[in-house]
Amino acid sequence: MSTTISYAELVGLLEEIFLRHGTDKVAASILAENCAMCERDGAHSHGIFRIRGYVDSLSTGWVDGRAIPEVEDIAPSFCRVDASNGFAQVALAQARDLAVSKCRQTGVSVLAIRNSHHLSALWPDVEPLAREGLIAISTVNSFACTVPFDGKSPVFGTNPFAFAAPLEGGDPIVFDLATSAMANGDVQIAARKGHALPPDSGVDKNGKPTNDPQAVLDGGALLTFGGYKGSSISMMVELLGAALTGGHFSFEFDWSGHEGAQTPHTGQLIILIDPSRAAGESFDLRAHTLIAAMQAAGVSRLPGQRRAEIRAQTLQNGIPITAEDLASLRTLAIA
Amino acid sequence: MSTTISYAELVGLLEEIFLRHGTDKVAASILAENCAMCERDGAHSHGIFRIRGYVDSLSTGWVDGRAIPEVEDIAPSFCRVDASNGFAQVALAQARDLAVSKCRQTGVSVLAIRNSHHLSALWPDVEPLAREGLIAISTVNSFACTVPFDGKSPVFGTNPFAFAAPLEGGDPIVFDLATSAMANGDVQIAARKGHALPPDSGVDKNGKPTNDPQAVLDGGALLTFGGYKGSSISMMVELLGAALTGGHFSFEFDWSGHEGAQTPHTGQLIILIDPSRAAGESFDLRAHTLIAAMQAAGVSRLPGQRRAEIRAQTLQNGIPITAEDLASLRTLAIA
Repeated sequence: MSTTISYAELVGLLEEIFLRHGTDKVAASILAENCAMCERDGAHSHGIFRIRGYVDSLSTGWVDGRAIPEVEDIAPSFCRVDASNGFAQVALAQARDLAVSKCRQTGVSVLAIRNSHHLSALWPDVEPLAREGLIAISTVNSFACTVPFDGKSPVFGTNPFAFAAPLEGGDPIVFDLATSAMANGDVQIAARKGHALPPDSGVDKNGKPTNDPQAVLDGGALLTFGGYKGSSISMMVELLGAALTGGHFSFEFDWSGHEGAQTPHTGQLIILIDPSRAAGESFDLRAHTLIAAMQAAGVSRLPGQRRAEIRAQTLQNGIPITAEDLASLRTLAIA
Repeated sequence: MSTTISYAELVGLLEEIFLRHGTDKVAASILAENCAMCERDGAHSHGIFRIRGYVDSLSTGWVDGRAIPEVEDIAPSFCRVDASNGFAQVALAQARDLAVSKCRQTGVSVLAIRNSHHLSALWPDVEPLAREGLIAISTVNSFACTVPFDGKSPVFGTNPFAFAAPLEGGDPIVFDLATSAMANGDVQIAARKGHALPPDSGVDKNGKPTNDPQAVLDGGALLTFGGYKGSSISMMVELLGAALTGGHFSFEFDWSGHEGAQTPHTGQLIILIDPSRAAGESFDLRAHTLIAAMQAAGVSRLPGQRRAEIRAQTLQNGIPITAEDLASLRTLAIA
């Protein structure tokens, strides 16, 4: 049975859940909004589906929901945050103004977050920066579940790469792609629904190609998207997300003592560029020219457009949710 | 019949060709070294195979081999170059020290080159920066030959994305990948040799999938690598390489009046990051840890390793070249 919930109501409910399971108010507010945004925009693999993972990560003491991030102002265009074993989104919120101000002053800036946990999509981190007129690139590594091209066992995470840029007369251009063939959340959802995976997505525990999501989850692994090219980009995400931030590589942390924990303990890099420093016509107008050419070539759905469309619908009509899911959330908020 | 030529001799010969066809000494030296490096490293699609394209682009007046790049110091971390319708590599050489110095002072810098021509691989631009201890990312757009995902006609170029980073105890980690399914040079080489293209590489002039390289070249187009994900990255390359630099998009310039011209008139972006600003163990040591994990997982050939191996061979034994190619080059150097 399906019902709907308003965005504000969902944020409030998720906030209660986070508070109930050990975060402080700041973290509860940031994470609730982040998770509700994913559900609102139809990004189900990072929406309320993830709440169990957040709760178990918190209750086993794997992640610190009350961590105070320490911002380090390193150089005119470089800042770092030690997330203190807390959530990357909380660290980002803490350092965001500094990184933006450095970017506006110098033309570009880097924000390197380490000792942090990230269980959400990346687009909620970059899209708001593009709404302020900046170009934002972000990478975050995760946990070893993806086999490098030409390798036999997992080393990389799903290692998303996200990009956002301002667009004249419209929502920012945003994409957020797993450099694995699929996102982990989508594998879990396929397993739950009994759907087969597309070809070239994963291997079973013996390293054999499989389209069975459960076989991937039971000791198997994902492949990278686009063969050796996706593998190279995934390697870059490890280098930027972990080596450059001072965080863990996807294969370096051991959460085996924290059963049910799902938040990878790694790092996140954000690069900001101020397009007002560019030569020629304004960047957002130029971006519009490119988008118009893509549409003229027959592209019917731009990167991020599906999310924007669903968002418009759910903000008006409410976010669809099953009665069962809603009951589970309400239980988690009090127990 | 095959012979060999030393790297130094090849550089000298190519320099004569460039000088003979209208470049100044600076451009001749930079382009000759760049092209010889590609041939030396087995990157044949960007080696002497490209000389005809350079020569025709110069002799038809499409590119200015004597252009003086104008470097613009815009902000503490942002510099631009107007390549004045010359070669991007010459513009890069002119602005390189400024960009590196900005990166060392502020932690990160951006070099935006516009009004420039680039017909080579991107790795020769980024690898030397990693040898100086910096992380370098570069994108350059090219000419409309690649269909966006979900589109029907070409908008994007082959739009390479290159990355280089220092590695403890070894050559830098370098990759340089076309975001199209193949590089144009490789399609041309396949056509010349009569080889079929791999599946999902291109379409013919009617938009139908084909594995015939000649059909792709005769009014057809390439597809992006990795479906919609590669298409998103290719779109990003247009935005960074053109919109952010002030250069042309791949679909914006008209070289129809310059028959034989092959140098795309676009822009190039380079992002430099100083990893000495990172927290924790030094970046190059951390990079070594990642590479070791990839090798332990069975990866036998790392990104860039094939080039390094061929380089070691050809520097010792000379660069293989057919007598016919050598004769053509010698003719071009005097006629």
